[in-house]
This record gives sequence, structure tokens and C-alpha cells, in this order.
Amino acid sequence: MLPKHPSESLTTLTDLVLPSETNPLNNLFGGELLARMDRAASITARRHSRRVCVTASVNHVAFNRSIPLGSVVTIESKVSRSFKSSMEIFIDVWIEDRESGVRTKANEAIYTFVAVDDTGRPVEVAPILPETELEKERYDAALRRKQLSLVLAGKMKPDEATELKALFNS
Amino acid sequence: MLPKHPSESLTTLTDLVLPSETNPLNNLFGGELLARMDRAASITARRHSRRVCVTASVNHVAFNRSIPLGSVVTIESKVSRSFKSSMEIFIDVWIEDRESGVRTKANEAIYTFVAVDDTGRPVEVAPILPETELEKERYDAALRRKQLSLVLAGKMKPDEATELKALFNS
Amino acid sequence: MLPKHPSESLTTLTDLVLPSETNPLNNLFGGELLARMDRAASITARRHSRRVCVTASVNHVAFNRSIPLGSVVTIESKVSRSFKSSMEIFIDVWIEDRESGVRTKANEAIYTFVAVDDTGRPVEVAPILPETELEKERYDAALRRKQLSLVLAGKMKPDEATELKALFNS
Amino acid sequence: MLPKHPSESLTTLTDLVLPSETNPLNNLFGGELLARMDRAASITARRHSRRVCVTASVNHVAFNRSIPLGSVVTIESKVSRSFKSSMEIFIDVWIEDRESGVRTKANEAIYTFVAVDDTGRPVEVAPILPETELEKERYDAALRRKQLSLVLAGKMKPDEATELKALFNS
Amino acid sequence: MLPKHPSESLTTLTDLVLPSETNPLNNLFGGELLARMDRAASITARRHSRRVCVTASVNHVAFNRSIPLGSVVTIESKVSRSFKSSMEIFIDVWIEDRESGVRTKANEAIYTFVAVDDTGRPVEVAPILPETELEKERYDAALRRKQLSLVLAGKMKPDEATELKALFNS
Amino acid sequence: MLPKHPSESLTTLTDLVLPSETNPLNNLFGGELLARMDRAASITARRHSRRVCVTASVNHVAFNRSIPLGSVVTIESKVSRSFKSSMEIFIDVWIEDRESGVRTKANEAIYTFVAVDDTGRPVEVAPILPETELEKERYDAALRRKQLSLVLAGKMKPDEATELKALFNS
Repeated sequence: MLPKHPSESLTTLTDLVLPSETNPLNNLFGGELLARMDRAASITARRHSRRVCVTASVNHVAFNRSIPLGSVVTIESKVSRSFKSSMEIFIDVWIEDRESGVRTKANEAIYTFVAVDDTGRPVEVAPILPETELEKERYDAALRRKQLSLVLAGKMKPDEATELKALFNS
Repeated sequence: MLPKHPSESLTTLTDLVLPSETNPLNNLFGGELLARMDRAASITARRHSRRVCVTASVNHVAFNRSIPLGSVVTIESKVSRSFKSSMEIFIDVWIEDRESGVRTKANEAIYTFVAVDDTGRPVEVAPILPETELEKERYDAALRRKQLSLVLAGKMKPDEATELKALFNS
Repeated sequence: MLPKHPSESLTTLTDLVLPSETNPLNNLFGGELLARMDRAASITARRHSRRVCVTASVNHVAFNRSIPLGSVVTIESKVSRSFKSSMEIFIDVWIEDRESGVRTKANEAIYTFVAVDDTGRPVEVAPILPETELEKERYDAALRRKQLSLVLAGKMKPDEATELKALFNS
Repeated sequence: MLPKHPSESLTTLTDLVLPSETNPLNNLFGGELLARMDRAASITARRHSRRVCVTASVNHVAFNRSIPLGSVVTIESKVSRSFKSSMEIFIDVWIEDRESGVRTKANEAIYTFVAVDDTGRPVEVAPILPETELEKERYDAALRRKQLSLVLAGKMKPDEATELKALFNS
Repeated sequence: MLPKHPSESLTTLTDLVLPSETNPLNNLFGGELLARMDRAASITARRHSRRVCVTASVNHVAFNRSIPLGSVVTIESKVSRSFKSSMEIFIDVWIEDRESGVRTKANEAIYTFVAVDDTGRPVEVAPILPETELEKERYDAALRRKQLSLVLAGKMKPDEATELKALFNS
Repeated sequence: MLPKHPSESLTTLTDLVLPSETNPLNNLFGGELLARMDRAASITARRHSRRVCVTASVNHVAFNRSIPLGSVVTIESKVSRSFKSSMEIFIDVWIEDRESGVRTKANEAIYTFVAVDDTGRPVEVAPILPETELEKERYDAALRRKQLSLVLAGKMKPDEATELKALFNS
């Protein structure tokens, strides 16, 4: 399969924070943001693979900034790397100040999706060819995350996680 | 502050999978499950701390089993360990077969919440005293996860992550 | 069919009161609570019967306490008695104070469900064997409620409503 | 206060049954219908009283006919009788056949609402002057229902329930 | 086909403005009102044609009055004129003051629906016979709107838009 | 005020068509699309004006193509022209084929928003400086639409609608 660029699967979901989506501090519920990111990521996975795609896992997501009621939230997601039938999707979340128009990074998240056929069985997807510096950095880190995930799930011996070992043995 | 048992914050959210919550394969959307787990976990955090609590992060969540339309889904969440103002919440997700009544584990997830005062500033919460074998196991693992999260965020040197190093240097 | 205990169909639905579910006094809408209780009761009916179940009727429901925005609401439902293909479901609704953690009874409600096959025809369900004092009390009262419902619907002569007559002729 | 006619508080809520509101048999969820009837009844109560009104109770509701996906459902509600600050609301639910246009009665329900001031305290409402035969019949029956409800709640002795006794002692 | 009166397709949708449907000024979102009007109009179209109907277009809709949170909104829609398989639906939106009970016109809107068979192909509908003065006025104006819409879409030459030309050449 | 380019207010809302948003033919409800376009347009208006903005009107919207369940829908909106405190927002709606990835135009719509201060009073917004050929075309047509809207509302004499007259008197 011919490789694709991350930009080919870029998905932008801009929307408001409505009153029904806020917690007692009047900020966007974490759960609502997780659901929106999942929808954006599923479209990204589908654009890359042109297949039905299902959520396989959510990596560590940190909620660094609260997102107040009435905010404009922009979710941008791209495939950062693919492994056979799975795709790591990198998601950036921005909010913008209404008066100044300044955009601030609110969150980053990483989801993994798997492309499946009509019976739900995994099918292969195109590899990724990163272009920008940031895309290359995320492409490399994806392998470390993949190994870490396999080690934590007991599916890879720590010794074989070559990318990861460097981090702890240096 | 007096320690509390994980069972004191146990929260059970049993509900159906409705048609509006399913993906093209007629299974529960990953994003919808993430949102439901966030609601259950926020109640758990509040029961432990008796404070307003906000989502701080979501650890690695694997979607091992798809959850079909019409399923009864039971989400059970408990505080597995607390660190000053943050609480690690361990979530077990079960589905049950309508005809046999058999319950199957569908997912596990770990969320971290922070207790805050009315201005959004972190406040201290009670420590956790695990009782069952499973609770003790999760209590111990919580420290390794905490260190891993700090190392990955660049807030702790790998050398200081004593619990974690054992895993890779053995 | 072997009898079952009410505890075998116990269903717990713990959830928050969100802003979109409140009336102009900032309390949970009666209609939203009715819908949540219906979902919990339908799971209880299904757990008892292992069949598809549909709402047959809602008995008198009194809304004694208003439930403010942000409350944690716990709905607990159990089968109190079964009659051939119908099940009386008894529902207790609790709210808890965030600061003290004290649980208060907010409502009681009684729904009746019928178990059906795939074509919608009623099918028989297991009888109920009550265990606790409260379960026995509700089991006995269920017969009086059944008779009252039949009399009011004109399907039973007041004379035949033996349980009920005692109440008015004593 | 001057009496009002039931027709002055007539509220009509016509709407579709959408896919997200159906049970596994593709019929409208009981709980969704209960919530819609509550919204219609609350408008009726408000039109009669010109006050904020809250749900006080739901009388016996029988779900005689299932309402399939795609149906047009018409809910009509009117005040059938008022008692100081409470109003009994009688609700008729109709579905209509798309091809023939024929309207069929699907359900009846009775809700009770209480008019309150801004602090939530009950305030008096206008009495009801029924006009049609059906309105007069429902007006009379409302008193029996009121007594039955008081007897069942232990707030009236069966002996004093004059309207009700006739039913069982005849 | 026998003509029908506009009153035969009259649809009334009375409902509340809930917190989840409001913008930052605490008024009903324009988009939510557009969606409600679409649902009412689709029922009107179906009542006139007894067919499945789909939205074909929305004419100019002016939002003259904002509709505050907690308002009772009444949407009334009728077929104003039909053209082969399409129906122009005229929609009046009213809000009422809780204390005085006075009804005020909030909006007017015109939607066009097309009746289709099960494969989505247009089918003919009954002509309209207006009765009241207002219905006749709207019936006549519907032809001008139809011509204007055809001219703007480039499907009719301005010269042939006889009804419309009068407006500009007088 | 310094003029802005249409591209500065470009808003992209990419999302899926979920089962709860479809009509009996399994296509996206017209009303749901109108609501989504309203949310996108309100963000566009806010990005151009940096003010709170409310929907003033919706111009003629034609639903040329039905949008099936499961589609990826991309809504792109930009300010096409501004008039004192009002902004005409031009919206393009695209759907894309999952397998080929080909994007097809599904709809165009034009909404008008007004920028307001905290009390709801209109405030002036920046003028528009179109850049591309399409932006210039839409900028010019916006004046004709403005005049047409004023004539139809009886707020401008047909004689004064210079841009519009050309169309009918040529």
C-alpha cells in the first residue's frame, strides 16, 4: 500500500461549549471532551484507511486547562503513525479568546483506532510518511508508546522494547 | 485526615446501550463509554473527597470487547489510591448476557481526578486503605503508574522512578 | 419455573443531575426522573426474566423532595412480585449530600413491566421469593395494588378484591 | 379567584418518534413518553395558574398500545380539577396512521402539579369549571382519585373517603 | 386528487425552552428553533400528503424576537400551497408571558417539503383550497415566492416570473 | 475599523451523522443540519466580530442532496460581507465517500448574524475585503440579497433596490 501523509487525514471539529456539557465549575466536562475527540479521531482514522474504524485504546490524556462555558473549542486530529491495521491518532485541542482571538493549546490526546471489514475483522492500512518536524517527532514517539503499551499489557518483554529501554538505562 | 476504604467510594452506574450511542457496526461508541466512565469516576472522586472534583487525566484505556446495541452495561468505579489532592480511580466495565445472565468483563480504565475548592484550587483528600487482594494490588500499581506518568511528562528523572526502574533493569 | 429473590434483579443507577435536566427552580425535572427510573426498572425486569421487557404501567409516584442541580442521584430497583408475565418493580431514589455524605430518600415509585417474546407476546416469568422484612411487606402490598388496579380498570368486581376490601370494610 | 375552563389550559405537543427514543422492539420507550407528558402537563399547569409549577405526583399510567418508530404522537393535556394549590392534569395521547390519517388513542395519564412561588412555597390556583360531558366526568372522578391517594398515603381514614367508600360498600 | 384545506394539516408543537438550548444571552438558539420548526413542518407535510416527506428548502426566516430560557413556545404550521409534489409550509411561532398569559408572535418561517415514495422519488400531493383571509393571502404569495426561488436558482427567466415582475416594474 | 478577509473567520465543523439524527429514509434530518450550520455560522460571526453574535435570519436554503446515516459531513462557513452590525455568513456543506474519499457538495446556505453587546444592543463590525474570485462573487451578490430582503420586508422601495432592479428590468 502507498504511504500517506498525516495531513491527508487532518480533521477539524470546531464547536461551542453548551450549558448542558459543563460541570459544577461551569467548565466543559472531561467526559464530553473525550467523546468529541473520539468522534474527530474516528473520522481521521476513516479518512486514512477508507474503512470502518473502531476505537482500540486511549493513551494517557492530561486535562491541563479547564475549558469554560461558551468557549469555541477546535479539535484537530491526524494519523501520527500506523501499525498494520492500527492507527495512532494525535489530537490537539485549542480554545480561543473571543475578544483577542488568541488561540491557546488546551489539551493533547492520543487515541488508537483499528480498521475493520464488515464483519469486524482487522484489515491492513497504509503506512504514514511524516512531513513536518512535529509530525516526524510524533511518528518516532509513536513507536516508544507502542512498545510501552505492549510491555504494560505483558505482550512484550521489557528487554525487547529497544526504543523504551534507552530511556531508563541511559 | 483519616484514611478511607475503596469500598466507601464505590459507584455503580448500570444503563442500557441506546440506538443513538452506537457506531456503524451497531456497537457502543468508544467516546460514549469514555463519557459514562467519566461521570461514574467523578461521583467516586466526590464520594471519597466530599469536594468538587475535576478530571485531571485518563490513563491508557483499552477497548478489548465491543459492546452491542441493547446491552446492559455496568460501570463500577472505586478510588484505588490518593496522592495529596489527586485520586486514581479504577473503573471496571461489565456487560451481561440477557439470556444466561452471565456477566463478562468488557473494559478497565483508570482516570485521575483532583479535588478543588470553589475557586478551583486543589485541596487535600483522605489517604486510601485497601482491603481486598485486588484493591492492594491496584494500590501498589498506582504508584508505578504515577511515576511513569511523571517520567513521561518530564517531571521526574527516570533514575528516581524507583518502582518503575525495577521493571526495566531486572 | 424456580422462584428468584428480589436481590437477584437489583439494579443501581447512580448519576449526576446535569444542567439540561433541570426546571426553572434548578431542580431535576419530574419527567427526567421518570425516564431514568424507567431505564433502571427495565433492566431489573430483564434481569429477573431474561427476556425483552416493556413498560406496562406506572403506579402512583409521589415527588416528595426536589432534587437540586449537581446532586448525585442513586436509583435502586428490584422486582417486588411477579404475576404470570408481569413484574411489579419497586424503585427507591436517594440523593446524597456532598459535604456530609448523608443519603436521603427522595422518592419511591412502582412500575409494572411485562416480559415478551420477539413478536411482542407475553411470556411467563419466575415467581418471587422475598427475603428481608421490607421485601416481604412490599410483596404483600403488591397484591393489594394489583387488585386495586384491576378494580379501577373495571376488570375485577370490588367484591372479589379480597385484599383490598379489608381496607375499606374494617 | 375566578374559575377557569379546562380548555383554557389545553396544551398540544405533536412530535415524531425518533430512533434514539425507541426500545429493542422499535417502539417508543415508556420513559420517554413519561418525560414528554411531564413537559406538556407542566405547560398546562402553568397556563392555568400563571405560576412556576412542579410535578407533585404521577397517577396510575397504563401503556396500552405500543407506539412504533416514526409515529406522529399527539399529547393533549388539560387541568381536570384543582385543589387549593394543586392541579390534576388529564393527558390523552394519540397516534395517527400515516396512510389513512386515522387517529387512535394510545394512552391516558394523570399527573398532579403544584403551583409555587419563587421560593418554592405552594400558592393557591383558580378553581375549575368543567364544560363538556367528558370534562365533567373527569372532574368528578378527580375527587375519588384524590381521596384514594390520601387513603393510600395514610393521610385520610378510609371512613372519611366518602366518594371512594361508595365503590366498595355498595 | 381532491383538494384539502390548510386546517387539515395544522400541527401544534408546544414546548419549553430548556437550559441546554440557549445561547450565551440565555435565549433560545436560532439553530434549535430551526430544528423544531422542521419537525413540526414535516408532520404537517405528512398530514397533507400521507407520504414520507423530506425538507426541500427553507425560505427566508427572520428572527425578530429573542425567546428567553423558560419560555413556552408554540409552533403552528399549515400547508399554505402545494405544487405537484412539493408543499409550502407556513409556520407561526408564538411565545406567551407566564404571568399575563398574553401570546406574542415571535417568528414566521416558510419551509418547503417534498412527498416521496419508499425509494425517495417525488409523488404528487393534493392541491390546497384556502379558507380564511390569511390563508388566501399566503396562498397567493406562495406563487410569488415559488417564482422568486426559481429565478434566483436560474431555473426561470425573470421575464416569465409574471407575479414577481409586477413588484419591480410597477 | 480595519477590514478583514473572509478566510480569517473560516470555521470548519466536521462530524458524523448519528442514528438519532436521521429521518425515516435514514438520511440526516433537515432540522439537524440547520442547527449544525447555525452553530458553525455563529462561531464564524464571533471570529469576525469578537463579539457575542445572534442569528438574525436564514436565507433561502436548498437541500439538494440527502445525507445518509454514517456520512462524514464537513461544514465550512465564512463571512461573505458585513453591513454595519450584521454579517452575511456563507456556508458550504460537503459529504465525502468513505471508500473513494471523494468530496461532494451537498448544500449551500446563507445565514445572517448580528453582533451585540452584553445588553443585546447591536454593535459595529469590521468590513470585509474579499480575496478569491468566489469570495468576490459572493461579496457582490450579498448586496443584492440584502436589498431583496429589505424589499420583501417592506423596508426598501423596489425602486431604490438598484442592484436588484437590474435583474428584472434588463
